[in-house]
Amino acid sequence: MLNKSFEKAKEQSKLLENDLYKNPHKYRVLTGDRPTGNLHLGHYFGSIINRLKLQSLGIETYILIADYQVLTDRNVFNEISKFTYELTLDYLACGLDPENYKTHIFPHSHIPELNQLTIPFLTLVSSSELNKNPTVKEEITASGLSNINAGMYIYPVHQAADILFCKSNVVPVGKDQLPHIELTRKIAKRFNTKFNKNIFTEPVALFTDTPTILGLDGIQKMSKSRNNSIMIKSTADETIKLIKSAKTDSSRYISYDPQNRPEVSNLLKLASLCSDICPKDIADKIGDQGSGKLKELTAEAINTYFEPIRKKRIKLEKNKDYVRDILLKGISKARETAIETLSEVTEAMNMKI
Amino acid sequence: MLNKSFEKAKEQSKLLENDLYKNPHKYRVLTGDRPTGNLHLGHYFGSIINRLKLQSLGIETYILIADYQVLTDRNVFNEISKFTYELTLDYLACGLDPENYKTHIFPHSHIPELNQLTIPFLTLVSSSELNKNPTVKEEITASGLSNINAGMYIYPVHQAADILFCKSNVVPVGKDQLPHIELTRKIAKRFNTKFNKNIFTEPVALFTDTPTILGLDGIQKMSKSRNNSIMIKSTADETIKLIKSAKTDSSRYISYDPQNRPEVSNLLKLASLCSDICPKDIADKIGDQGSGKLKELTAEAINTYFEPIRKKRIKLEKNKDYVRDILLKGISKARETAIETLSEVTEAMNMKI
Repeated sequence: MLNKSFEKAKEQSKLLENDLYKNPHKYRVLTGDRPTGNLHLGHYFGSIINRLKLQSLGIETYILIADYQVLTDRNVFNEISKFTYELTLDYLACGLDPENYKTHIFPHSHIPELNQLTIPFLTLVSSSELNKNPTVKEEITASGLSNINAGMYIYPVHQAADILFCKSNVVPVGKDQLPHIELTRKIAKRFNTKFNKNIFTEPVALFTDTPTILGLDGIQKMSKSRNNSIMIKSTADETIKLIKSAKTDSSRYISYDPQNRPEVSNLLKLASLCSDICPKDIADKIGDQGSGKLKELTAEAINTYFEPIRKKRIKLEKNKDYVRDILLKGISKARETAIETLSEVTEAMNMKI
Repeated sequence: MLNKSFEKAKEQSKLLENDLYKNPHKYRVLTGDRPTGNLHLGHYFGSIINRLKLQSLGIETYILIADYQVLTDRNVFNEISKFTYELTLDYLACGLDPENYKTHIFPHSHIPELNQLTIPFLTLVSSSELNKNPTVKEEITASGLSNINAGMYIYPVHQAADILFCKSNVVPVGKDQLPHIELTRKIAKRFNTKFNKNIFTEPVALFTDTPTILGLDGIQKMSKSRNNSIMIKSTADETIKLIKSAKTDSSRYISYDPQNRPEVSNLLKLASLCSDICPKDIADKIGDQGSGKLKELTAEAINTYFEPIRKKRIKLEKNKDYVRDILLKGISKARETAIETLSEVTEAMNMKI
């Protein structure tokens, strides 16, 4: 079932991707992250780089920091505001640029009118639709928590509010997020039908081909919680040290073979992404100089690529007021949009005073 | 279980009631109704009259019109805004008076910061706590709907936001609402404990002794949906006609015996409430003049009692702008309060920017 809808969604995504380049003005993107730590290279090549591409096309992009969502499966909250700043620093350092593009960065806890939409949206879905969401089920298992709070079950509806408040029609996602996009599409459609007003467009999932970056263990996806990551903000020295600790294999001869040599191939892939030379050519260049040379080249490529980003980040770190200002402007823009949408919703629901 | 906590809640309520008279300034009340139609005599003697008493004590009272809640178990929404006006007209005609007392009337759909509180509150309750709420279960059965939306299951959490946004510490309720108050108390306590700030007080349920008014069928509670009601706004002629249609029994001799003669006794009770003569004395006065005389006296008592209220209502009906103004002022006050509370909540959750 999920696979069938995934195939269909992938087709839709292809059509969308083609049109994005031709008619960027027709689109509005909603994307974002939970503020749980700094971004790593997996985030960068998996999503930030695509956001930069959409931004450069002139597409309006709402980048939502899902701070409330952190509470759905974690009990830690002491550092949420700190992580919101850290995330924003990462965004800005990478080139997401609210000053010169239609890019808005904001935490959703600061947009009451967005959060309010969750309430009427909840009356458009059934409990069983929420309980059988496969992604939520997986996340519950992954959280390891025995006591699951109700926020966890309803967060896909809250996320529908995140997406629909700004009437975004494009949501860049991975396959695991597809059930949420499908639910959002249902909510949009049901709202329009029930209240007989064409307020919401059904957003389309954008699956961009992105490389899967493995962690330094060479086995699992790079992920902060697995402690196998290189952060965007890592220093050059930290990067060298981390790459040195990366798992490789016993063969001195370096070759690109993701199937049989995942660890070595992952380093080659990283070096390639950072240097624009294809992994095979890098491997050929190293030949039998072994994994020491591979690690040296990889760390060098990463450090060269990220040097300007890291420099920019260090500069921004000193200017907390500037970062705060970016967030306040993002909040202001998002609220303006949310107030407009909520007003239409209130009118459609016959609740105007 | 419920009965045990009901007994405990009743004790708390008694202590509260005593203190309300001594220290009215210590209290803030949250009460309200769903905008599904006009108020009838059951509402008047069951709750409006108590609100008037609290108002006259100088207690600040937030009267919340739960317009969103209508969507949890009804598919009709065309008249929500109309019913919000009608309800407000009923309130004002009865003497609830935002101009001269600390009484605020507002629909909750207009208070985004109140609705937003539902999101963090949902992370403080478990799904099973919501699923086993006895009142919700009963309402689901009563709604007759086969497809229950998620809004129905989470509305007690939304209601906790209704109660806690203004930090009310008194909520006048019937026994059926006790599970919701208990949940609200839990949410208040859990929030304070988890986020280590004493933001919310646990509200206390106020069970006031109120007469149960039966409908014109003399069997069931007066209720709009049972079509057995006399509305506050009914005209004198309508009232006479409705009382004439009331069920009585075959005995000509009128006596007050609620156990064995519920229909006759209900009319006596109504006449008594409207005339301040005890039901038995009214019965004695009628003697063997039969139910015709009883109905005549009852209709007369009701019409005399409600005449000034109905006159006031007719005057107010012509001044829609005034009613709108009352609501806008109520919204403004409620928002001010909600913004303050949400700001404290955001700070406690470490989400300030």
